Amino acid sequence: MTNPQVIAIDAMGGDHGPSVTIPGVARAARLLEGRNVRFLLCGDEARIAAQLGRSKRIADLCDIRHSDLVISSDDPPAQAMRRGKGSSMWNAVEAVKNGEAIAAVSSGNTGALMAISKLLLRMAADLDRPAIVASWPSMHGSTTVLDVGANVGCDAERLVDFAIMGEAFHRAVHAVPRPTVGLLNIGSEDQKGHEELREAHAILRDGGLPIDYRGFVEGTDISSGVVDVVITDGFTGNVALKTAEGTARFIGSEMRAAFTSGLMSKLGALIANQALKKLKHRLDPNTVNGGPLLGLNGVVVKSHGGANDEGFANAILVAADVAQSRFADEIHANMQQLMTVLAHPPAAGEVS
Amino acid sequence: MTNPQVIAIDAMGGDHGPSVTIPGVARAARLLEGRNVRFLLCGDEARIAAQLGRSKRIADLCDIRHSDLVISSDDPPAQAMRRGKGSSMWNAVEAVKNGEAIAAVSSGNTGALMAISKLLLRMAADLDRPAIVASWPSMHGSTTVLDVGANVGCDAERLVDFAIMGEAFHRAVHAVPRPTVGLLNIGSEDQKGHEELREAHAILRDGGLPIDYRGFVEGTDISSGVVDVVITDGFTGNVALKTAEGTARFIGSEMRAAFTSGLMSKLGALIANQALKKLKHRLDPNTVNGGPLLGLNGVVVKSHGGANDEGFANAILVAADVAQSRFADEIHANMQQLMTVLAHPPAAGEVS
Repeated sequence: MTNPQVIAIDAMGGDHGPSVTIPGVARAARLLEGRNVRFLLCGDEARIAAQLGRSKRIADLCDIRHSDLVISSDDPPAQAMRRGKGSSMWNAVEAVKNGEAIAAVSSGNTGALMAISKLLLRMAADLDRPAIVASWPSMHGSTTVLDVGANVGCDAERLVDFAIMGEAFHRAVHAVPRPTVGLLNIGSEDQKGHEELREAHAILRDGGLPIDYRGFVEGTDISSGVVDVVITDGFTGNVALKTAEGTARFIGSEMRAAFTSGLMSKLGALIANQALKKLKHRLDPNTVNGGPLLGLNGVVVKSHGGANDEGFANAILVAADVAQSRFADEIHANMQQLMTVLAHPPAAGEVS
Repeated sequence: MTNPQVIAIDAMGGDHGPSVTIPGVARAARLLEGRNVRFLLCGDEARIAAQLGRSKRIADLCDIRHSDLVISSDDPPAQAMRRGKGSSMWNAVEAVKNGEAIAAVSSGNTGALMAISKLLLRMAADLDRPAIVASWPSMHGSTTVLDVGANVGCDAERLVDFAIMGEAFHRAVHAVPRPTVGLLNIGSEDQKGHEELREAHAILRDGGLPIDYRGFVEGTDISSGVVDVVITDGFTGNVALKTAEGTARFIGSEMRAAFTSGLMSKLGALIANQALKKLKHRLDPNTVNGGPLLGLNGVVVKSHGGANDEGFANAILVAADVAQSRFADEIHANMQQLMTVLAHPPAAGEVS
């Protein structure tokens, strides 16, 4: 049997720390059985051990790297970089840098995680910051959307980088052999939107990259699942993600109000209880939790700070899927090809 | 009794033409009783008369301006401008220009309506095209969002124009004496987002405009109703609007699937039928239909092309509310004040 592969965990991150992260590790360990994975738990040894005590079988799969230092959710990224050395988050990312771990997972402060990851692992792509990926429930399963918040302004080349990375990510995590890719715009005609969108459109359409590019898509297409991967800049992606979250929350609250507004409604809701539970689970952000930071020399996955143990386990599964796939090689090969395309770019808006 | 005020209707627009627009006029006429409003119906006289024949009382409130020409939904705006003269849409907007009507309502081709309105009425604000407003259902009633699609790139001054126009619109239509206003961004801190957002933020915060400005808001805040009016550029607003539409459609389809997945679920849904109907009505886009084109010298309201008669009636009510309010005067006064602010602008990012 080959050596086990290690996933480094920032056990102290998120709203609840070890009381959620360790049960999350336990759940992930059960789901990853047979894939030869171990865990490096970074953080307060006593608190971690107290949680681990519940299951010897899980504890046997884990090593603990003690640290007193925890980066809090309001620490500015610059401060986390300067004073964060030796914190649970830092140690998890450092384990990837040293080759001890194949991936790191944290539900801590996003800005700090990006800054520390960029500092320790360096960027493989020419981006300001690692791109954040969201997995969005859709009519056909799940849509991969990036960037949802890190890179506010994006030129055409960066958007094409996102397409290359997002496509490889979707294949690694969803086992779709050839994911389809769309560029988020406000209409499907070639002349719509910003200049940089039209340029990226031309490169993706005519540049000969091995990507199944389907052209411009619109906001409605994210949940309709018309393509597997939706590419956008970090500003637009963040607004879209939060608008969708807000809409789901609003509809949820209207549903609760409707189902508690009278005896018949309450009775109906009671009888349809199983259906409502299933619906809630399907729309629960925990079900699709785990956004990798793309563009780094190494796999780092951000879990939602408010995720429960199921959500944290999902983030660990995403990390394992990406790290155990051909993700890095594919991206490297495609980036090389992009360099050739950029040396002889297709003209934006040119008729193919 | 003073002379009645006339609302000009493009009777031929939308997916269904007179079979929806005329019942919509009838419905609006009943709701506007006592407000001394008449209607100028522009389009094919025979088809309009056939629909009107059903109610003499409504027919008495209407005049017909016959036209053979209809602008179709796929006519490019430039072509609509060149060859659209005398069409039902053109005649409706021209009635506003000539002072015959206080407002025009059309559910036809948006691009054509914008181009014809801009050509005939001219812009009152320094915009490429009229800004499109969306009314968004929220926890506190309705959020006014603009621009949702017309002006792709917006500098700080245009965003401030939107704030002035959107605030006056919200007051006119929702009878809120002092609507609160927010600027859509990806975080609430002063240094977040694009340069033009930070500049607009500084003008709105420190420029002394009579607007209850509450700072940056995020995508989740559109449906939470934390402010009455959300300001954004046409690209971001369009993506946000369509993402919310897609999310609502996705959740609706998941709900239908859940409630038809088994006998108990079906029974529960049957019993909770009233609640589900109420919920559907609350989330129905027809309930909040009617997006005015802001920034013109005159009131033009776009109805959704697929709206039913209730939706079209709502668009007419929006037109009447805006046209019969102090909307134009307020905007004029605030634009004057903005000119003074821009002559001595507050520094972007300056601490107040």
